[in-house]
This record gives sequence, C-alpha cells and structure tokens, in this order.
Amino acid sequence: MREQLMKMLEDRKDEMIEIRRYLHENPELSFKEENTAQYIANFYLGKDVEIERNVGNGYGIIVTIKGGKPGKTIGLRADFDALPITEETDVAFKSKNDGVMHACGHDAHTAYLLVLADCLIQLKDSIPGTIKIIHQHAEETPPGGAKSIVESGALDDVDNVFGIHIFPTNPVGDVGYRAGHAMAGRTYFKLSIQGVGGHGSSPHMANDAIVAGSYFVTAVQTVVSRRLDPFEVGVVTIGSFDGKGTFNVIKDRIELEGDVRYMNDQTQQVIDKEIHRLVAGIEAEFGVECELTYTADYPPLYNDPELTENVKTSLENMHDPDIKQVIEFPKFSGSEDFAYYAEKIPSTFFFIGCKPKGGDEVYFNHHPKFDIDEGALLVSAKAVGQVVCSYYEKGDR
Amino acid sequence: MREQLMKMLEDRKDEMIEIRRYLHENPELSFKEENTAQYIANFYLGKDVEIERNVGNGYGIIVTIKGGKPGKTIGLRADFDALPITEETDVAFKSKNDGVMHACGHDAHTAYLLVLADCLIQLKDSIPGTIKIIHQHAEETPPGGAKSIVESGALDDVDNVFGIHIFPTNPVGDVGYRAGHAMAGRTYFKLSIQGVGGHGSSPHMANDAIVAGSYFVTAVQTVVSRRLDPFEVGVVTIGSFDGKGTFNVIKDRIELEGDVRYMNDQTQQVIDKEIHRLVAGIEAEFGVECELTYTADYPPLYNDPELTENVKTSLENMHDPDIKQVIEFPKFSGSEDFAYYAEKIPSTFFFIGCKPKGGDEVYFNHHPKFDIDEGALLVSAKAVGQVVCSYYEKGDR
Amino acid sequence: MREQLMKMLEDRKDEMIEIRRYLHENPELSFKEENTAQYIANFYLGKDVEIERNVGNGYGIIVTIKGGKPGKTIGLRADFDALPITEETDVAFKSKNDGVMHACGHDAHTAYLLVLADCLIQLKDSIPGTIKIIHQHAEETPPGGAKSIVESGALDDVDNVFGIHIFPTNPVGDVGYRAGHAMAGRTYFKLSIQGVGGHGSSPHMANDAIVAGSYFVTAVQTVVSRRLDPFEVGVVTIGSFDGKGTFNVIKDRIELEGDVRYMNDQTQQVIDKEIHRLVAGIEAEFGVECELTYTADYPPLYNDPELTENVKTSLENMHDPDIKQVIEFPKFSGSEDFAYYAEKIPSTFFFIGCKPKGGDEVYFNHHPKFDIDEGALLVSAKAVGQVVCSYYEKGDR
Amino acid sequence: MREQLMKMLEDRKDEMIEIRRYLHENPELSFKEENTAQYIANFYLGKDVEIERNVGNGYGIIVTIKGGKPGKTIGLRADFDALPITEETDVAFKSKNDGVMHACGHDAHTAYLLVLADCLIQLKDSIPGTIKIIHQHAEETPPGGAKSIVESGALDDVDNVFGIHIFPTNPVGDVGYRAGHAMAGRTYFKLSIQGVGGHGSSPHMANDAIVAGSYFVTAVQTVVSRRLDPFEVGVVTIGSFDGKGTFNVIKDRIELEGDVRYMNDQTQQVIDKEIHRLVAGIEAEFGVECELTYTADYPPLYNDPELTENVKTSLENMHDPDIKQVIEFPKFSGSEDFAYYAEKIPSTFFFIGCKPKGGDEVYFNHHPKFDIDEGALLVSAKAVGQVVCSYYEKGDR
Repeated sequence: MREQLMKMLEDRKDEMIEIRRYLHENPELSFKEENTAQYIANFYLGKDVEIERNVGNGYGIIVTIKGGKPGKTIGLRADFDALPITEETDVAFKSKNDGVMHACGHDAHTAYLLVLADCLIQLKDSIPGTIKIIHQHAEETPPGGAKSIVESGALDDVDNVFGIHIFPTNPVGDVGYRAGHAMAGRTYFKLSIQGVGGHGSSPHMANDAIVAGSYFVTAVQTVVSRRLDPFEVGVVTIGSFDGKGTFNVIKDRIELEGDVRYMNDQTQQVIDKEIHRLVAGIEAEFGVECELTYTADYPPLYNDPELTENVKTSLENMHDPDIKQVIEFPKFSGSEDFAYYAEKIPSTFFFIGCKPKGGDEVYFNHHPKFDIDEGALLVSAKAVGQVVCSYYEKGDR
Repeated sequence: MREQLMKMLEDRKDEMIEIRRYLHENPELSFKEENTAQYIANFYLGKDVEIERNVGNGYGIIVTIKGGKPGKTIGLRADFDALPITEETDVAFKSKNDGVMHACGHDAHTAYLLVLADCLIQLKDSIPGTIKIIHQHAEETPPGGAKSIVESGALDDVDNVFGIHIFPTNPVGDVGYRAGHAMAGRTYFKLSIQGVGGHGSSPHMANDAIVAGSYFVTAVQTVVSRRLDPFEVGVVTIGSFDGKGTFNVIKDRIELEGDVRYMNDQTQQVIDKEIHRLVAGIEAEFGVECELTYTADYPPLYNDPELTENVKTSLENMHDPDIKQVIEFPKFSGSEDFAYYAEKIPSTFFFIGCKPKGGDEVYFNHHPKFDIDEGALLVSAKAVGQVVCSYYEKGDR
Repeated sequence: MREQLMKMLEDRKDEMIEIRRYLHENPELSFKEENTAQYIANFYLGKDVEIERNVGNGYGIIVTIKGGKPGKTIGLRADFDALPITEETDVAFKSKNDGVMHACGHDAHTAYLLVLADCLIQLKDSIPGTIKIIHQHAEETPPGGAKSIVESGALDDVDNVFGIHIFPTNPVGDVGYRAGHAMAGRTYFKLSIQGVGGHGSSPHMANDAIVAGSYFVTAVQTVVSRRLDPFEVGVVTIGSFDGKGTFNVIKDRIELEGDVRYMNDQTQQVIDKEIHRLVAGIEAEFGVECELTYTADYPPLYNDPELTENVKTSLENMHDPDIKQVIEFPKFSGSEDFAYYAEKIPSTFFFIGCKPKGGDEVYFNHHPKFDIDEGALLVSAKAVGQVVCSYYEKGDR
Repeated sequence: MREQLMKMLEDRKDEMIEIRRYLHENPELSFKEENTAQYIANFYLGKDVEIERNVGNGYGIIVTIKGGKPGKTIGLRADFDALPITEETDVAFKSKNDGVMHACGHDAHTAYLLVLADCLIQLKDSIPGTIKIIHQHAEETPPGGAKSIVESGALDDVDNVFGIHIFPTNPVGDVGYRAGHAMAGRTYFKLSIQGVGGHGSSPHMANDAIVAGSYFVTAVQTVVSRRLDPFEVGVVTIGSFDGKGTFNVIKDRIELEGDVRYMNDQTQQVIDKEIHRLVAGIEAEFGVECELTYTADYPPLYNDPELTENVKTSLENMHDPDIKQVIEFPKFSGSEDFAYYAEKIPSTFFFIGCKPKGGDEVYFNHHPKFDIDEGALLVSAKAVGQVVCSYYEKGDR
C-alpha cells in the first residue's frame, strides 16, 4: 500500500497547491469558517465515507474512512481557521477578506489532508482499521475547537491521533518530532483592581489603583523567580496595564491582562495558586477590590513517547527523497489545542519544514508576511501517509 | 468714597447677577474665550478708560482707570475661562455650549469685577492712584494666561495685585485669607518608557516596558516618603499608566503622566531632582529608554504677609452686614495661576464663601453640579471694594 | 518675690555648675539611676518639704513645696537619666561610667532645678499655691518615666506643668517656645516575618523571608506617600532589617524594627491602621507568618496655647540681661515623654539655648561630643523662675 | 582482570569500612586536612607508585599507577575534606573534632578509593595504560581544590576522569548517571550599599540604605522571571540581608550576599550581566554607592555524553549482585568542583546509593545527622573498578 500511496500523492501535488491557494484567498476567522467548512464538505461529496458536520462548538467536520478489515482507529487532524491579520505578502492568491489571513499555515494543513484523505479512501480496502479525518475549526481562538470535539464523543473510539504543523524555521524536507512535553500550556487572566478615585493633590482621600497595580506587577515576578522549581518552565507576562487616565486625577480602576505558560499541569497548578494568593494579598495590603478571571486555555502538549518513537523510526526508514531529515525539535513555548486530543488519547504532533526558498528574511507564523514553500504540502502528505502505513503494518495492529 | 461705593454696589446687585448668568450660559474654554472677551470689551465701550486687548498669550484684557490724583497702582484680577465639563445642574441659565461649563465660578469673578470696575470709574476722581482691571483668560489650562500677562510688561508699573476666588465650603458672608504660602504649586510630567516588544512566552527576547514602569511607580513613592522634609508638603501622583496592550504580547512602550504638588520652591526643586534621578535609575536598571517631560506649571501661591494682614484688618473693621466673618483659611493643595502675579508683585488672593442655601450636598469647584449662592457676587464686590478704599486711605498712599 | 528670686539665682550660679558637673561625671542609664536619685534626695535633706521617692515605674522623686497661701498647684519637671553613649569630649568632668553619658543635657536640667527649688523653698511663704518639683527618671527609654508618674496619681492635684530642654542650636540667652503641637509622637514597631528556610538553589521548597521583607519595605513607603494628608506630618523609618544569613541558604526568618513619627493622634491612627493592614497583606501575599509588635511610645507634645502665650509674654516682659531673645521655635520631629504630662494637664515645654562658645562645629543632643555653654543653667533657672512668679502674680491665682 | 579485581574488593570490604570510620572520627576542614593527607600518604608507603603531594592550592595528593602496557591515562578522583558541622549522630566513631564532621561522605569516597587503588596497584601489570588516583582536598569551600589541581598541570596527560558521590536518596545497589549538564554552576556575590545614616525622624537628611537594598531585592526577581529563557535553569537567591541597626536610626550601610545557580555558561553570562546592570541602576536611582563582588565559583558539571554512555553500558552489563540498578538521575541544582576536571578533560561523575537501612527519615548530605549504609563502599569500589576494566578492555584503548 505504501508505494501506491506515495505515487498517488506525488501525482496530486499540484491539486494540493491549488486547494491551498483557494483556501488562502478565502480565509475565515475562528468560529466563523462557514464557507471553508462547506468547501471541505463538498470535497467529500459522493465519496464512500461518513461525514459528520458541526462537530463540537463550531464548524468541525469528521470524515470516517472504514478500512477493508477490522483494526485500530486513528485520527488525522488538520485545522482550518485563519487569523485577524491584514496580509502583507505579494502572492497572487492574497487574501480577499480584508483583515483576515491564513498566516499560520492552516490552509496548507487542510489542503494536504484533503488529498491524503482522498487517496486513503481509494486504498481503504487495504486498510486494517478505521481512519477518522478531523477537519478542526477554531484552533486560534480559545476555547478552541479541539476540546469540544473531544467532549462531543466523536473520537471515543479513536486509539491514536496524529497531526502536523508547518514551520518556517526549517527547509522543506525537514521533519521534526519531540516526545513528551513539546509545547506549552497557556492561561489567560484578567485582573481588575478597584480603588477610589480622587484629586491628584489629595491621595489620602482616594485609594490609588495604579499604585496597587504596580506593586502587583513587581510582586508577581516572584511566582517564576521563587515559587517554581528552577528545572520547570513557567512564564507570567502582564501584557496589558490599562490605566490610562488624567495626570491630576487619581485613577480609581485599572485592568491588567496576563499570559501564563507552563510545560506541565503541576507547574500550571503552582502558578494558578500563587497568582490567586498574590491577588488576595494585594487586596489585603492596599484595601482595593480585585476581580480575577483566570482561565486555563490550552494544556501543555504531550506527545506520547512510544507513538513519537514509532513516527520517528518509520520516517527515518522511509528513504524517500522528499523527506530529507528527521530531527528532534526543541520544546517551545507556543501553545496548540491539539493538546486536548493528546490529553485523552495517546497522540503525537510533529513539524514539517516550509521555509520559503531564497528569502533573506524568514517571517514566522502570525506575521503579516508569513509565506511558505509549497513543497511542504507534499512532504506533509507523504510523512503522514507513511505514518499511517507503518501504523497498520506493525505486527498485529 | 467708601460709603458711596458700597451704596453703588448694593444698587447694582441684580446687574451683577444678570451678567454672571449671561456668562454662565455662554462659557468658553481656555484660550478660546473670543466671545467672552468681546462681551467684556463691549462693557467698557464709551467709558473713560484705556483698554488693552489680547494681552499675553490669549484674549486677556487690561482696563486702566486713572485716578484723579497721583499714587500707587494696583491690579484687580478676575479670570473668565470655563472648563471642559458637561453641566448637570438644573439652573435656567444652564450652559448652551455642550461639554463646556463655568464650573469654577469664573463667571461670578468676572461679573462682580465688571460692576465694581464701573463704579470705580465713576468715582475715579477721588482715587489717589491708578487701578488696572485684569480680565484674565485661560486660568484653567497650563501654561495659563497669568504668566504671559506678567511677562508682557503690562503690569510692570503695578505695586500690588488683589484677586479672589469663590468657594462653596463656606456660606455667603464668610471671607477667608491666608498669609504666606496658601495654595500649592504644580508640575505636570510625562514619562515614556521604551522597551522591546515580543511574544508573551519569551520574555528574554523582549524588554518589558510594563515591568519597568511598575517598578518606577513603586520607587517614586520614596520621593515623598524619604526625600522630603516631613514638615514640608509634597505630593507625587501618577494619574495615568497607559499600558493597554494584548495579554500575550510583551508591551514595548508605555506612557505615564503625573502630577506634583508642593508649597514652596525648595520642595519643588527636591522633587524635580529626585524624579529625574529615578528616571535615570530605571533606565540603567532595566535597559529601557525613557523620555521625561517635566514642566512646572503654576508656582505655589505666596500671599504677601503684610498685604494679607492689611486685607484682613480692613475687612474686619468694615462692619458691613454682608461681610459676616473674616477667617483664616487652611493651606490647600489646589493650584492657581494667580501665583504668577504674586511671584513678581506683592499680592494677595482671598476667598469668598458661596455655598448654596438649603442644599444637602455641596458640589465643589469642577463638579458638573457645581452651583453658587449668587449673594456671593455682592460680597465679592464689597470686599474687594473695601480693600481698594482702605489701600488708598492708608496714610500717604 | 521676683527680684529676690533672680538675685538668689545669680548668687548660686556656680553651685548649679558644680552640681551639673558632678552629675555629668556620674551618669546612669534610664531605670538604673539609683545613685542619682539618692543624690537628689540628699539635696533636700532637712528642708521643709515633702519628698516622695520611687514614684512611678522607677526612681522618680516628687518634692512638694507648700506655699504660704492657698492657690494653684504647678509642677516643674526635670529629667535625670543618661544615655548608653561613650563620651568623646575633653571636659575635666568627663563621664566616669564607661559607655554612659549625659549627652542630652539632663544633668543641666536637674542642676538648675535643684537650685531653683531650694530658692523657692526659701521664698515659699510668699507663694500663693503649691509647687511640685518633679525629678523624673528614664526619659530616654520607652515606656519612659513620665507616663507612670502621671498614672501614679501624684500629679492629680496639679493645675499646670512646666518643663524645659536645653538645645545647642541657639546661643545662651535665647529662649524658644511653640504653642500647640511642638514635638512629634513616636511609635516603635517590630515585625518578625517567618517563612521557610531551605537551600539557595531550591526556592520552591522554601519560602524566602528576605523577599517578603523587602516587598514590605517597598510597600510601607505608600503609608506616607499615599495614605497621609499631605498637610500632615508623618515618618515611617525601618531602622533595622535583621536578615543576616548564609549566602546559599534561604533565610527562614527576619526581623524588622521601625520608628513612626507624627504630630497628632489622628495621623498616628492612620499610620497604625495602614501598617497593620500592610502586614496582613504581606502575610496573605507571600504566605509567611508575621508577628507585629506595635507600641505607641510617646504622644505628640501639645503645648497648651494659652499657657504658652503666658510664658512667652512673661519672658518678653522680663527685661533681664540674661534672657536675650524669646523666639518661636519650629515644630520638630524629636519626641519627649513630657508629652504625657501635657496630655493630661495643660502644660508647656520650652527651649533654652546652650550652644558652646567658639566651637566651629555644633554637636547635637545624643552626640558623643555633645557639650554645652554652662551659662544656660542660670538662664534656665531664671526663665522658669520668672514663669513661676508671673503665674502666681496673675490676678487671683 | 575484572573477576580478580571484584574478588579482591569483596575480600577487603571490612578494610574499607575501617578506613572510613577512622576518617569519620578524624574530620578536617577544607584547606586544613593536614592529618588526613598524611594518613593517605602513609597508606601508599612502600607501594610501587609515584606520589605527588601538596598538589594545587592545598593538601592534594596524586598517586600514579603505571600499568604494564602503554595506553590511555585516566584519573579516579575522591575528595577528603569535611564540613563545619557539629555531628548529631549516635555512631560509635562519631567525630572527635568538635564542630567538624564528614557530613557529605568524603570519608567514604576516600576509603573506597584507597582500597581500590591498592588492588589496581597489585593488578597493574595487566593494565594497558596509566591510572592517576586523585585524592582531592577542599571540595566544600570555594575556590575548592579541583581548579588548582587542573591548573597545576598534574593532569595534563590525563584522557578522562571519573568520580562518584554517595547519595542517600537511593538504597545501596543503585547507581545513577546523567549525561551532559548534570549539576549546577554557582556564583557567590556580595553587594554593599552605602547610603547616609541619620535620625529616624529626618529621612531627608539621610539616604536610607535599607530602602535601596529592599528595592534591589524586588528588582532582582526580574532576572529570573524576565531575562532568562524560560527553558533555561537559573536561580538568584539573596541569602543574607545584613541590615541590623537601631529602630530610630536610618541605616547607612547594608550588605547583601547572594547565590546564583545555572546549568550552562550562557545562562551564567546573562545573570552576571543583569545583576551588574541592576546594581548600576540602584546606584543611579537612589544615589547610594554600591560595591559588588561577583565571583563565579564552580562551573556547571558537564558529564561527557559518550563516556557517560560507556559507564552506563558497562555497569548494566556487569551482572554483579551488588549493583542492583543503573538509573538515569535528574539534573540537580547542587554544585561540585569536579566540574573543573570535566571542563578541561572529558569526564563523568556518577552517583552511588547509600540510604541507611531501616531509618524512617533520611538525612541528606550536610545534615548533622547524615549517615550512610556502609554497603555503599563496596558498591562504589566495584562500580568504579568495573568502569576502569571496561575502559581498558574496549577495543584499541
């Protein structure tokens, strides 16, 4: 099956590019991907699969490919939402939706997976198991789509999930993996501090919210510097200190917004507890009233070590000229809602190099000039195809 | 002259009220008081005085009344600008200019002084000296009008200046004085802190301006707590901490605005030096770039002690039923650009009670519901009239 | 009586100096002034007075001089304890007690008052009232002697108390007074912060008391900078931060000691409340356990205005060549347990210049080189004598 | 050779214990190990080896065992100094030197290595290379002995160094290894802050060093929280804040001492730069004078990965009943001057379980009740012996 699949993918390389360009030109924001979802659904029209639409809290689609023999069930996931960014590239297929852009490569993820899915549908009699293609909405915007898809029960029978992300740090041909904790979990928080306003010349008649907020910012530094195990990873950033006012009026109310990162749940819990403690402390200390909204968005991404090792080995043994290098990637502090699949189902998420050729400067994901080498589409399809083939070839699976 | 003057003022009480109501209905912002200035100028049409218009940096007007005999020259000052406040009173003569309001009583100051000036013009043959009526623009907004009027040279021949402010803490009939430092000086400052932006999860790649700003706010507390003589008065308020951003993006630049108060120059200098030092310290400490705009607006108001004593004595000896009580007022931390006259010319500024009758709650100057008992107009006119009479009666003056 | 008294005092000038030198040579610490008290008691042996010893919580002595006629009762107070300072002067009568020194002039206070008392005893038939000579122990060390003497009831029949302090800012001949709040009240506090010790490399296993203490020190600055009326006087000093430890061990416990000053009870209460609040806040914020000892030592000294005015007037009218100038002193932030008398009994405390002649540099009270011009002894005796005479001469007193 | 060696070691198990108990009873502090060094030297008397004494900056001893054939040169290192701790165990061979204790197991290190060295001397004809036994002084006290031994040139011909540490976290039979960065580097720093002293009631006349120091402590938290890559390990602890003074005197000078930890040089450099920057900032901010002593003590310990892998494999393949488990140890934040050997020469340092039997509670290294299961001596000897055998057996080495 493997050889046949690789041949089919190579033959449909241009189709992947075409689909990707169509999607790139027609991006839609998280939770608003109505047309994208319709486009995906249309692709499967008339094919011998089950399609479930509006899965979870949005336009999620699950396509079930039943193989010719009984066996394990796997999920292959690609996300399809875009970002609120105004595109600044010069590509011919530039976004037609002002202020919306596929600046994270989800267009490429969806394009390769549609073609790969179609090939697997054609080869399904040879597959000893079931494949669920997970077209996921709303990866970019908390609470994301993944969590709700998991909670919907649609994946209850899935044994393992695989997903990829294209990444412009590496050239086309590089595939990156990492076992265990690979991407950070993230918590958003908002802290409102209510003091008492007053005239700038009479601090004793007021209760200065800017002062209380500033002492909070200095105190919150101790969470990372003193409360975390130095061998653990944690970040607490106050990204917004909204205290604009008038120079000679004591500010009555400010609002801080922050971002917390961690690589495992224990660290999440320590930071959670400490920030709540500090907020209670600031209230007691300065006599202000605080309101804290503290929401863990995405958990840390945990790639199942055995599954990841299998992916690594099968890719290393592939000897395909398009897959030039299989390398271990470092942990990094970005977050992904693929983590929700991995939390419930042993899964692994890996990385496909997509660095544009010839460019002097690389624009990262989420940059208005983000661009890719479309060769990454075929690499993605082949790499995931290879993982699927190896998965079903291995012994009694 | 005194009895005649008092009689004339009593007879024109209603006119004062009428003028005040007209001005109240037609307020104009600082430096934009074109119609108000024209109204004032019209008032003097055909009268035997010299009128100088557009004095200083705005619509200031100086009306010179030459007395029948040679002698000292005094200035009587009233301000005529309004505030950017939307009136919330129910008076029949409510502001017709949306968002602009005479919420500080300058309408009353101008009304009483116009009528008093007219009376003095009629009595000028008896006056052994010259009286300059100073109709001042733009008291509310730094740099104010007073400083530029002083610098224009128009008052170079003035021996003393007198001014009043109506104040709703006290009922009509109370007159307040205070020798020496009576109102605070004020400095406005703006501090921009430029760090380096970045992703919330990678603090080491950025330089967090919110963190630097917060440490500045905590450190600036030491200026008052540790650098000032405990027997001196000083306030440093950060009224604005403009650091609104996105929760997961490290903020590259913030802007603080602050207000400094003090009762004498020495304290001003200490605070000035310490804030500049702290800003340099924050730059060195956090590697950020700071830009500090530090502008001393209004100096502390220093009422000449001898002149103030004379005012007090002459009012106490007046035995007029409208002047019920002459009391020493406490220092207070508000600021006044009358201080610029007092800085160059021995002057005194005193206070006229205007608390509305029957109200349960008192709304202070600058409140959208600020209102006055118009009986204060006659008291103002009589008190200042009395001061003028005593001034010229004293010995060979 | 006045002339006679002044003559007697002049005649015994050398005796005052002799007594002062004896006391200077034999200083004793607060609450340990056994020999000094015996010396004082011996002085009164055989005189027609009542002596009460061990009054209050130490070696206090009250000597009652009953006048020839009935009338008011006044107290004249001098303190007699010394300080734990090693004397560094070159005087011939240098302290014989190592590490103990009369560096605050209490030797002079006692010397002049002994002689004055003896003169008054001799003149007592002319006195229309009763005079209680209060030889007070332990002024330097809280809780001081004054409070306990007041509480003993020994002064329940006293109408007014007078006391003086010699002061090297002014030359001999200057007498200073100040009505109302003249010297600061003082509170001592001790704050123990108990965290959890640990290895320097594992902050998460410990709870760093030095960090909690440092945040407390930065936060406590806001008490003065933000919680006090800018027109009030307040100081909060952390004089001791006892956190000595080993560089690579996280400190489990630290101890701070602080000093609070204020000119009235209201300010005392605000600071008291705010420091307690901050301590509770630090506990909540950092999860440490705090123990706060907060003891108001000496109240602000309030000189009865009428009594002070009388003192001023009687001294101004004295026309004695030894009393060269009677001036208003500024408030100052030192503290005095004379304040306890003044709290219960209308009293006044005034100042006698004692600046040494010819010295280039002036050493203040509590300096190891503190020295006085002994001419201040006669001035003290005459000034207090004059106050007593005037007191009893005034009308029906 | 291996079998023979293991047999010899088993036979001399009691001798190792005897030696260890003698050393335990006679501990000596770092740089003062005169008798211990003599004891060690005596042990080698009459044996066919070269002995070099007083190597480096203390009592270091290097014993060279020349093998029967040419080949590589390895070093085996054991440290022999004790700690300034008063022993609190109940062992019969308790320390005879008051306040000095072998609380870190260096007695055991030396004991096993003496016996192992003697066995290797006996077997030296079979050894294809040279073995240098490094008896190192002064591991506990910076600058330590290792650095100076490396700098002495005595190891210039050494290809690899091996060392072990006994560890009470694991039972006898466990051996732990870790490739790459395994233990932290450490920097000691001392910061003196010189302000200006003064009376507690007059902060403006002084410059409060406690306040400056406290702001420094709060600011230094940002080094770890904001300046380090979250994926790197760093600790900054202020272990000592020496600011003891008198409550009502403003402290003129304080001294902080701190401890910095890191797992690689780059992190060391970032922290170094940031702390210097903060100190300059505090000087600028508060106008104090700072003196910073900043000394990198021990580098991070880097275990050569290949050598570590070889150690692991050879121990795993040993199948000796005394070596029960070979496990990867986590990184930890303690420091070791073995790191100096590893910095210049590919080396590896591994861990031998020594947890006492039956104890409910484990006392760690440096605890006054630290105790070991002496079975660890034979395990140490066998494990290091096995490493030596494998080293010389491997192919052409």
